[in-house]
Amino acid sequence: MPSGEDDLIARYFRPLATDPGALGLVDDAAFLTSSGDDLVVTTDAIVEGVHFLPNDPPDTIARKALRVNLSDLAAKGAVPAGFVLTLALRDANEEWLAPFARALGEDAAAFNCPVLGGDTVSTKGPLMISITAFGRVPPGRMVRRAGAKPGDRIAVTGTIGDAALGLRILKGEGEGIDAASRDVLIQRYRVPQPRNALAMAVRDHASAAMDVSDGLAGDLAKLCAASGVSAVVRLVDVPLSEPAQAFIAKGHSGIEAVVSGGDDYEILCTVPENRWEAFVAAAQDAGVQVSAVGRIEAGAGAPRFLDAADQPVTLKHLSYSHF
Amino acid sequence: MPSGEDDLIARYFRPLATDPGALGLVDDAAFLTSSGDDLVVTTDAIVEGVHFLPNDPPDTIARKALRVNLSDLAAKGAVPAGFVLTLALRDANEEWLAPFARALGEDAAAFNCPVLGGDTVSTKGPLMISITAFGRVPPGRMVRRAGAKPGDRIAVTGTIGDAALGLRILKGEGEGIDAASRDVLIQRYRVPQPRNALAMAVRDHASAAMDVSDGLAGDLAKLCAASGVSAVVRLVDVPLSEPAQAFIAKGHSGIEAVVSGGDDYEILCTVPENRWEAFVAAAQDAGVQVSAVGRIEAGAGAPRFLDAADQPVTLKHLSYSHF
Repeated sequence: MPSGEDDLIARYFRPLATDPGALGLVDDAAFLTSSGDDLVVTTDAIVEGVHFLPNDPPDTIARKALRVNLSDLAAKGAVPAGFVLTLALRDANEEWLAPFARALGEDAAAFNCPVLGGDTVSTKGPLMISITAFGRVPPGRMVRRAGAKPGDRIAVTGTIGDAALGLRILKGEGEGIDAASRDVLIQRYRVPQPRNALAMAVRDHASAAMDVSDGLAGDLAKLCAASGVSAVVRLVDVPLSEPAQAFIAKGHSGIEAVVSGGDDYEILCTVPENRWEAFVAAAQDAGVQVSAVGRIEAGAGAPRFLDAADQPVTLKHLSYSHF
Repeated sequence: MPSGEDDLIARYFRPLATDPGALGLVDDAAFLTSSGDDLVVTTDAIVEGVHFLPNDPPDTIARKALRVNLSDLAAKGAVPAGFVLTLALRDANEEWLAPFARALGEDAAAFNCPVLGGDTVSTKGPLMISITAFGRVPPGRMVRRAGAKPGDRIAVTGTIGDAALGLRILKGEGEGIDAASRDVLIQRYRVPQPRNALAMAVRDHASAAMDVSDGLAGDLAKLCAASGVSAVVRLVDVPLSEPAQAFIAKGHSGIEAVVSGGDDYEILCTVPENRWEAFVAAAQDAGVQVSAVGRIEAGAGAPRFLDAADQPVTLKHLSYSHF
């Protein structure tokens, strides 16, 4: 005599629970066997109205919920090992749950990160999906925010700012931007592309790393603070997609908003000069674009951002904050 | 230049993050070193208006959030290793956060289950605390819901039904119950007493186990379904506290509501007859009350509940369900 909650789990999530440690989601807990590796643990929640919009498609919400956590694992140099999720729903709506669960299962398979368990609760408020994800690294090898040294190059993957601009388009901005560019930017907001393919290269070559989730400027400041260093970034070196360039060219945004907008889910890392060539080669092998955007410097000041004439640019808001 | 969110984490939660794997909560992730044990993973969320009431004291909310997860670890025979939490808040209110964090830290220390990391997000809806907790068991030794065999004794820890009655008192029921009894029942709703002291005894002697969170009747049905067995329980053997007995004696509740109410966070386990004496002795050593309430039987039917005359009692609602 299963309850509605058990029935929901059985229908939508049990088919995804193929890992032996998930015990078919019929137990109180899951288990992860020891491989002798350290287990990297990260937890990130996404909330309706904050990290996704009420009318975002359920499949993109599922992918974003998992991928923001996969992005953390990638930045730490870890290989995905599985995840648990807490789903806070207003109701058990088949039209929403079926595509949500299907997409979650597809991403779990694609990133080799099986669902291990979860909890489903009812809420009268916004939908929320909280995921705790696990990854493995050899003992002591998790790449940390602390570790950047003066002289290290600062690298980022992919392109920066697309997601923040995509959100602005969803909120009605971006007049005159062509439909294809709008779609690219919106998709970058809805479905991050975590750089798990780069995890090994980060582990082998980076002195420090994190994922860019709250904006490049603020996240670099956090990495510098954890490492006890400062940094200089040349804004012209920050990689922008063509749609983002078009958005800026039309006068809809300055570069400042791009480097302080959130939701990039790219990797920010620092690489010692003598590792740079090997890092770039490994990134090429992994098929992940990496760009050098600046240098780590000695000191405790906030990172400096320079314009094309090497003049400092003042950023009003470094990053997104919930409070 | 920390954001409000970082500032909140630094002020209230960093002081709790004493485990080396927590990295002082300044990284994207935490790590757990390998001990060669299996890692047991459980996740349980509590939601305002569902698992706690809007005017419950923040310290009891913190304790409940952690303890419902500790209870799962205990039932699985696991030793706590740490936890991560997601906190969904409407605002960053000092009067609420300070006692919440203090109590969370006290329980983390008392149960030797350190905070490893977390995420703080804003919501316009009900408060929600989602915790994922980790425990260790020797390889292959996690106690499962599957494993109960016909003839095994069914045991529960502590007393059953107190929390469900406490909630009813908070909602205005229970006229004529003395103040001390009311306080006991309310406290049992607000602050579960997870039976982590019994974890080793469960691991050494139980054939199957789970924690009672959604009501004894429904949870026993789940254990039986996972084990492919049925069960018979004599209601007179279900251990009741004196306040619960008074509540029933005053005519406020039948025993049915007691065995199908939620929030007990006691351990339900099955113990082979030849292990029973050793189990009881181990429980005594651990200082945890255990009671035999019935027997596992062959078959696939729902568990049967018998009254004092051994007549079957029909339970309308087996357990709490969110949907």
